[in-house]
Amino acid sequence: MNSAKPILTPDELLFHWQGHRALTRRVIEAFPEQELMSHSVGGMRPFAELAKELLAIAVPGLKEIVGGEIKPFNDENEKLDSKAALLNAWDEATLAIDELWAKIPLERFRENIRLFGEYDFPVIQNVLYFIDNEIHHRAQGYVYLRTLGIQPPFFWERQLEQPASA
Amino acid sequence: MNSAKPILTPDELLFHWQGHRALTRRVIEAFPEQELMSHSVGGMRPFAELAKELLAIAVPGLKEIVGGEIKPFNDENEKLDSKAALLNAWDEATLAIDELWAKIPLERFRENIRLFGEYDFPVIQNVLYFIDNEIHHRAQGYVYLRTLGIQPPFFWERQLEQPASA
Repeated sequence: MNSAKPILTPDELLFHWQGHRALTRRVIEAFPEQELMSHSVGGMRPFAELAKELLAIAVPGLKEIVGGEIKPFNDENEKLDSKAALLNAWDEATLAIDELWAKIPLERFRENIRLFGEYDFPVIQNVLYFIDNEIHHRAQGYVYLRTLGIQPPFFWERQLEQPASA
Repeated sequence: MNSAKPILTPDELLFHWQGHRALTRRVIEAFPEQELMSHSVGGMRPFAELAKELLAIAVPGLKEIVGGEIKPFNDENEKLDSKAALLNAWDEATLAIDELWAKIPLERFRENIRLFGEYDFPVIQNVLYFIDNEIHHRAQGYVYLRTLGIQPPFFWERQLEQPASA
Protein backbone atom coordinates (compact mmCIF):
# COMPACT_ATOMS: atom_id res chain seq x y z
CA MET A 1 0.00 0.00 0.00
CA ASN A 2 1.19 3.46 -0.88
CA SER A 3 2.19 5.43 2.21
CA ALA A 4 0.86 8.76 0.88
CA LYS A 5 -2.20 10.08 2.63
CA PRO A 6 -5.49 8.92 1.05
CA ILE A 7 -7.10 11.34 -1.40
CA LEU A 8 -10.08 11.74 0.91
CA THR A 9 -10.64 10.93 4.58
CA PRO A 10 -14.02 10.34 6.24
CA ASP A 11 -13.76 13.72 8.02
CA GLU A 12 -13.17 15.47 4.70
CA LEU A 13 -16.07 13.67 3.05
CA LEU A 14 -18.35 14.70 5.93
CA PHE A 15 -17.19 18.32 5.59
CA HIS A 16 -17.85 18.12 1.85
CA TRP A 17 -21.36 16.77 2.40
CA GLN A 18 -22.22 19.24 5.14
CA GLY A 19 -20.97 22.03 2.85
CA HIS A 20 -23.42 20.86 0.21
CA ARG A 21 -26.14 20.63 2.86
CA ALA A 22 -25.43 24.22 3.93
CA LEU A 23 -25.97 25.27 0.32
CA THR A 24 -29.18 23.26 0.05
CA ARG A 25 -30.40 25.01 3.20
CA ARG A 26 -29.79 28.34 1.47
CA VAL A 27 -31.86 27.16 -1.50
CA ILE A 28 -34.76 26.23 0.82
CA GLU A 29 -34.46 29.68 2.41
CA ALA A 30 -34.47 31.41 -0.98
CA PHE A 31 -37.99 30.16 -1.79
CA PRO A 32 -41.04 32.11 -0.71
CA GLU A 33 -43.14 29.85 1.51
CA GLN A 34 -45.93 29.15 -0.94
CA GLU A 35 -43.64 28.50 -3.92
CA LEU A 36 -41.49 26.20 -1.79
CA MET A 37 -44.57 24.07 -1.19
CA SER A 38 -46.22 24.19 -4.59
CA HIS A 39 -44.11 25.63 -7.45
CA SER A 40 -43.42 23.02 -10.10
CA VAL A 41 -41.62 23.08 -13.45
CA GLY A 42 -42.17 20.41 -16.10
CA GLY A 43 -44.49 18.47 -13.81
CA MET A 44 -41.70 17.78 -11.30
CA ARG A 45 -42.18 17.76 -7.52
CA PRO A 46 -42.08 21.08 -5.63
CA PHE A 47 -38.80 21.80 -3.85
CA ALA A 48 -40.28 21.05 -0.42
CA GLU A 49 -40.94 17.48 -1.60
CA LEU A 50 -37.38 17.15 -2.87
CA ALA A 51 -36.01 18.46 0.43
CA LYS A 52 -38.19 15.95 2.29
CA GLU A 53 -36.70 13.17 0.15
CA LEU A 54 -33.21 14.35 1.10
CA LEU A 55 -34.16 14.35 4.78
CA ALA A 56 -35.64 10.87 4.46
CA ILE A 57 -32.33 9.62 3.05
CA ALA A 58 -29.61 11.28 5.14
CA VAL A 59 -30.26 10.45 8.80
CA PRO A 60 -32.29 7.25 8.22
CA GLY A 61 -29.58 6.05 5.79
CA LEU A 62 -26.77 6.78 8.24
CA LYS A 63 -28.66 5.02 11.02
CA GLU A 64 -28.68 1.86 8.90
CA ILE A 65 -24.98 2.33 8.07
CA VAL A 66 -24.02 2.48 11.75
CA GLY A 67 -25.89 -0.74 12.40
CA GLY A 68 -29.51 0.19 12.81
CA GLU A 69 -32.39 -1.87 11.54
CA ILE A 70 -32.82 -1.96 7.76
CA LYS A 71 -36.22 -0.52 6.82
CA PRO A 72 -37.88 0.31 3.51
CA PHE A 73 -37.29 3.86 2.29
CA ASN A 74 -40.12 6.11 3.41
CA ASP A 75 -40.46 9.82 2.84
CA GLU A 76 -44.14 9.88 3.75
CA ASN A 77 -43.44 10.19 7.45
CA GLU A 78 -42.15 13.70 7.24
CA LYS A 79 -44.86 16.06 8.43
CA LEU A 80 -43.09 19.16 7.25
CA ASP A 81 -45.74 21.49 5.99
CA SER A 82 -44.03 24.85 6.36
CA LYS A 83 -40.71 26.44 5.50
CA ALA A 84 -39.89 26.86 9.19
CA ALA A 85 -40.60 23.19 9.89
CA LEU A 86 -38.41 22.14 6.97
CA LEU A 87 -35.52 24.36 8.04
CA ASN A 88 -35.85 23.13 11.61
CA ALA A 89 -35.75 19.50 10.46
CA TRP A 90 -32.77 20.36 8.26
CA ASP A 91 -30.84 21.78 11.22
CA GLU A 92 -31.67 18.80 13.41
CA ALA A 93 -30.44 16.50 10.65
CA THR A 94 -27.18 18.50 10.40
CA LEU A 95 -26.39 17.71 14.03
CA ALA A 96 -27.57 14.09 13.77
CA ILE A 97 -25.39 13.50 10.69
CA ASP A 98 -22.29 14.69 12.57
CA GLU A 99 -23.09 12.39 15.48
CA LEU A 100 -23.85 9.34 13.35
CA TRP A 101 -20.85 9.89 11.08
CA ALA A 102 -18.51 9.71 14.06
CA LYS A 103 -19.78 6.18 14.67
CA ILE A 104 -18.75 4.82 11.24
CA PRO A 105 -15.48 2.89 11.53
CA LEU A 106 -13.05 3.46 8.62
CA GLU A 107 -13.35 -0.10 7.35
CA ARG A 108 -17.14 0.18 7.26
CA PHE A 109 -17.02 2.38 4.16
CA ARG A 110 -16.02 -0.58 1.99
CA GLU A 111 -18.51 -3.01 3.43
CA ASN A 112 -21.64 -3.76 1.47
CA ILE A 113 -24.99 -2.75 2.88
CA ARG A 114 -28.44 -3.30 1.46
CA LEU A 115 -29.62 0.20 2.26
CA PHE A 116 -33.35 0.60 2.80
CA GLY A 117 -33.49 -3.12 1.91
CA GLU A 118 -32.84 -2.16 -1.69
CA TYR A 119 -29.57 -0.46 -2.63
CA ASP A 120 -26.90 -3.13 -2.30
CA PHE A 121 -23.57 -1.32 -2.57
CA PRO A 122 -20.53 -0.53 -0.44
CA VAL A 123 -21.26 2.14 2.17
CA ILE A 124 -18.99 4.64 0.39
CA GLN A 125 -21.01 4.32 -2.82
CA ASN A 126 -24.25 4.77 -0.93
CA VAL A 127 -22.88 7.90 0.77
CA LEU A 128 -21.64 9.33 -2.54
CA TYR A 129 -25.10 8.65 -3.90
CA PHE A 130 -26.66 10.65 -1.04
CA ILE A 131 -24.50 13.63 -1.97
CA ASP A 132 -24.94 13.27 -5.74
CA ASN A 133 -28.70 12.93 -5.33
CA GLU A 134 -28.75 16.08 -3.19
CA ILE A 135 -26.77 18.09 -5.78
CA HIS A 136 -29.10 16.77 -8.49
CA HIS A 137 -32.34 17.72 -6.75
CA ARG A 138 -30.98 21.01 -5.45
CA ALA A 139 -30.13 21.96 -9.04
CA GLN A 140 -33.80 21.47 -9.91
CA GLY A 141 -34.45 24.01 -7.17
CA TYR A 142 -32.08 26.42 -8.90
CA VAL A 143 -34.17 26.18 -12.07
CA TYR A 144 -37.39 26.61 -10.07
CA LEU A 145 -35.97 29.76 -8.46
CA ARG A 146 -34.89 31.15 -11.85
CA THR A 147 -38.39 30.64 -13.24
CA LEU A 148 -39.65 32.63 -10.23
CA GLY A 149 -37.21 35.43 -11.02
CA ILE A 150 -35.21 34.70 -7.85
CA GLN A 151 -31.39 34.65 -7.90
CA PRO A 152 -30.23 31.35 -6.35
CA PRO A 153 -27.24 31.26 -3.97
CA PHE A 154 -23.83 30.87 -5.58
CA PHE A 155 -22.98 27.23 -6.23
CA TRP A 156 -19.68 27.57 -4.38
CA GLU A 157 -21.23 29.09 -1.21
CA ARG A 158 -20.66 26.16 1.09
CA GLN A 159 -19.22 27.60 4.25
CA LEU A 160 -20.67 25.79 7.19
CA GLU A 161 -22.55 28.21 9.34
CA GLN A 162 -24.00 26.57 12.38
CA PRO A 163 -27.63 27.48 11.95
CA ALA A 164 -29.46 28.60 15.04
CA SER A 165 -31.60 25.80 16.40
CA ALA A 166 -35.28 26.66 16.26
CA MET B 1 -2.04 6.01 10.09
CA ASN B 2 -4.89 3.52 10.07
CA SER B 3 -4.03 0.45 8.04
CA ALA B 4 -7.55 0.01 6.63
CA LYS B 5 -7.93 0.71 2.94
CA PRO B 6 -8.83 4.36 2.17
CA ILE B 7 -12.51 5.06 1.63
CA LEU B 8 -11.83 6.03 -1.98
CA THR B 9 -8.90 5.42 -4.30
CA PRO B 10 -8.02 7.50 -7.38
CA ASP B 11 -9.17 4.64 -9.65
CA GLU B 12 -12.52 4.54 -7.89
CA LEU B 13 -12.95 8.29 -8.12
CA LEU B 14 -12.18 8.16 -11.86
CA PHE B 15 -14.75 5.38 -12.29
CA HIS B 16 -17.27 7.46 -10.35
CA TRP B 17 -16.65 10.51 -12.53
CA GLN B 18 -16.72 8.57 -15.80
CA GLY B 19 -19.98 6.99 -14.65
CA HIS B 20 -21.43 10.47 -14.21
CA ARG B 21 -20.02 11.48 -17.59
CA ALA B 22 -21.70 8.46 -19.20
CA LEU B 23 -25.00 9.67 -17.76
CA THR B 24 -24.40 13.24 -18.95
CA ARG B 25 -23.76 11.83 -22.43
CA ARG B 26 -27.17 10.15 -22.28
CA VAL B 27 -28.76 13.47 -21.37
CA ILE B 28 -27.11 15.15 -24.40
CA GLU B 29 -28.42 12.30 -26.56
CA ALA B 30 -31.94 12.66 -25.16
CA PHE B 31 -32.30 16.20 -26.52
CA PRO B 32 -33.57 16.81 -30.05
CA GLU B 33 -30.87 18.72 -31.94
CA GLN B 34 -32.58 22.09 -32.03
CA GLU B 35 -33.69 22.04 -28.39
CA LEU B 36 -30.20 20.99 -27.32
CA MET B 37 -28.88 24.17 -28.91
CA SER B 38 -31.60 26.62 -27.97
CA HIS B 39 -34.12 25.43 -25.36
CA SER B 40 -33.95 27.52 -22.21
CA VAL B 41 -35.88 27.55 -18.94
CA GLY B 42 -35.90 30.55 -16.60
CA GLY B 43 -33.41 32.40 -18.81
CA MET B 44 -30.69 29.81 -18.21
CA ARG B 45 -28.21 28.67 -20.86
CA PRO B 46 -29.26 25.92 -23.29
CA PHE B 47 -27.93 22.46 -22.46
CA ALA B 48 -25.36 22.57 -25.29
CA GLU B 49 -23.76 25.57 -23.58
CA LEU B 50 -23.68 23.76 -20.26
CA ALA B 51 -22.10 20.69 -21.91
CA LYS B 52 -19.49 22.96 -23.51
CA GLU B 53 -18.67 24.38 -20.09
CA LEU B 54 -18.18 20.84 -18.77
CA LEU B 55 -15.87 20.03 -21.70
CA ALA B 56 -13.92 23.24 -21.10
CA ILE B 57 -13.32 22.18 -17.49
CA ALA B 58 -12.54 18.46 -17.62
CA VAL B 59 -9.61 17.94 -19.98
CA PRO B 60 -8.13 21.46 -19.72
CA GLY B 61 -8.39 21.21 -15.91
CA LEU B 62 -6.70 17.80 -15.82
CA LYS B 63 -3.93 19.06 -18.11
CA GLU B 64 -3.14 21.75 -15.54
CA ILE B 65 -3.30 19.20 -12.72
CA VAL B 66 -0.72 16.95 -14.41
CA GLY B 67 1.63 19.87 -14.79
CA GLY B 68 0.56 21.74 -17.87
CA GLU B 69 0.57 25.48 -18.22
CA ILE B 70 -2.02 27.36 -16.13
CA LYS B 71 -4.36 29.30 -18.43
CA PRO B 72 -7.51 31.33 -17.82
CA PHE B 73 -10.75 29.35 -18.08
CA ASN B 74 -12.14 29.59 -21.58
CA ASP B 75 -15.24 27.90 -22.95
CA GLU B 76 -15.39 30.12 -26.02
CA ASN B 77 -12.97 27.97 -27.97
CA GLU B 78 -15.32 25.10 -28.39
CA LYS B 79 -16.74 25.15 -31.90
CA LEU B 80 -19.38 22.59 -31.19
CA ASP B 81 -22.43 23.62 -33.13
CA SER B 82 -24.23 20.30 -33.54
CA LYS B 83 -25.28 17.38 -31.38
CA ALA B 84 -22.92 15.07 -33.28
CA ALA B 85 -19.98 17.43 -32.74
CA LEU B 86 -20.77 17.65 -29.03
CA LEU B 87 -21.06 13.89 -28.62
CA ASN B 88 -17.83 13.40 -30.56
CA ALA B 89 -16.01 15.89 -28.34
CA TRP B 90 -17.52 14.18 -25.30
CA ASP B 91 -16.14 10.79 -26.39
CA GLU B 92 -12.71 12.23 -27.12
CA ALA B 93 -12.68 13.80 -23.66
CA THR B 94 -13.62 10.44 -22.11
CA LEU B 95 -10.45 8.88 -23.50
CA ALA B 96 -8.29 11.92 -22.69
CA ILE B 97 -9.53 11.95 -19.07
CA ASP B 98 -8.49 8.31 -18.62
CA GLU B 99 -5.04 9.05 -20.05
CA LEU B 100 -4.47 12.21 -18.02
CA TRP B 101 -5.79 10.67 -14.81
CA ALA B 102 -3.18 7.90 -15.00
CA LYS B 103 -0.52 10.63 -14.83
CA ILE B 104 -1.67 12.06 -11.46
CA PRO B 105 0.55 10.74 -8.65
CA LEU B 106 -1.33 9.87 -5.44
CA GLU B 107 0.28 12.66 -3.44
CA ARG B 108 -0.74 15.20 -6.07
CA PHE B 109 -4.37 15.07 -4.94
CA ARG B 110 -3.53 16.95 -1.74
CA GLU B 111 -1.33 19.57 -3.36
CA ASN B 112 -2.74 23.00 -3.95
CA ILE B 113 -3.18 24.22 -7.49
CA ARG B 114 -4.45 27.56 -8.74
CA LEU B 115 -6.63 26.03 -11.41
CA PHE B 116 -7.28 28.24 -14.43
CA GLY B 117 -5.28 30.84 -12.49
CA GLU B 118 -8.26 31.29 -10.20
CA TYR B 119 -9.45 28.35 -8.09
CA ASP B 120 -6.80 27.88 -5.41
CA PHE B 121 -7.61 24.58 -3.71
CA PRO B 122 -6.12 21.10 -3.30
CA VAL B 123 -6.39 19.02 -6.47
CA ILE B 124 -8.93 16.68 -4.84
CA GLN B 125 -11.26 19.58 -4.09
CA ASN B 126 -10.97 20.86 -7.63
CA VAL B 127 -11.76 17.39 -9.00
CA LEU B 128 -14.77 17.00 -6.69
CA TYR B 129 -15.89 20.41 -7.91
CA PHE B 130 -15.68 19.21 -11.54
CA ILE B 131 -18.00 16.31 -10.69
CA ASP B 132 -20.39 18.33 -8.51
CA ASN B 133 -20.63 21.02 -11.17
CA GLU B 134 -21.42 18.39 -13.79
CA ILE B 135 -24.19 16.85 -11.64
CA HIS B 136 -25.56 20.35 -11.02
CA HIS B 137 -25.70 21.40 -14.67
CA ARG B 138 -26.89 18.00 -15.86
CA ALA B 139 -29.82 18.29 -13.46
CA GLN B 140 -30.78 21.53 -15.21
CA GLY B 141 -30.86 19.42 -18.37
CA TYR B 142 -33.28 17.03 -16.64
CA VAL B 143 -35.66 19.92 -16.00
CA TYR B 144 -35.27 21.16 -19.58
CA LEU B 145 -36.13 17.66 -20.88
CA ARG B 146 -39.19 17.45 -18.62
CA THR B 147 -40.47 20.80 -19.91
CA LEU B 148 -40.09 19.33 -23.42
CA GLY B 149 -42.13 16.28 -22.41
CA ILE B 150 -39.07 14.02 -22.74
CA GLN B 151 -38.30 11.37 -20.10
CA PRO B 152 -34.68 11.84 -18.94
CA PRO B 153 -32.42 8.81 -18.36
CA PHE B 154 -32.53 7.25 -14.91
CA PHE B 155 -30.21 9.02 -12.47
CA TRP B 156 -28.55 5.74 -11.52
CA GLU B 157 -27.79 4.70 -15.13
CA ARG B 158 -24.06 5.09 -15.00
CA GLN B 159 -22.64 1.97 -16.60
CA LEU B 160 -19.69 2.90 -18.69
CA GLU B 161 -20.37 1.94 -22.26
CA GLN B 162 -17.48 2.73 -24.52
CA PRO B 163 -19.28 4.95 -27.00
CA ALA B 164 -18.49 4.40 -30.67
CA SER B 165 -16.15 7.10 -31.88
CA ALA B 166 -17.80 9.31 -34.47
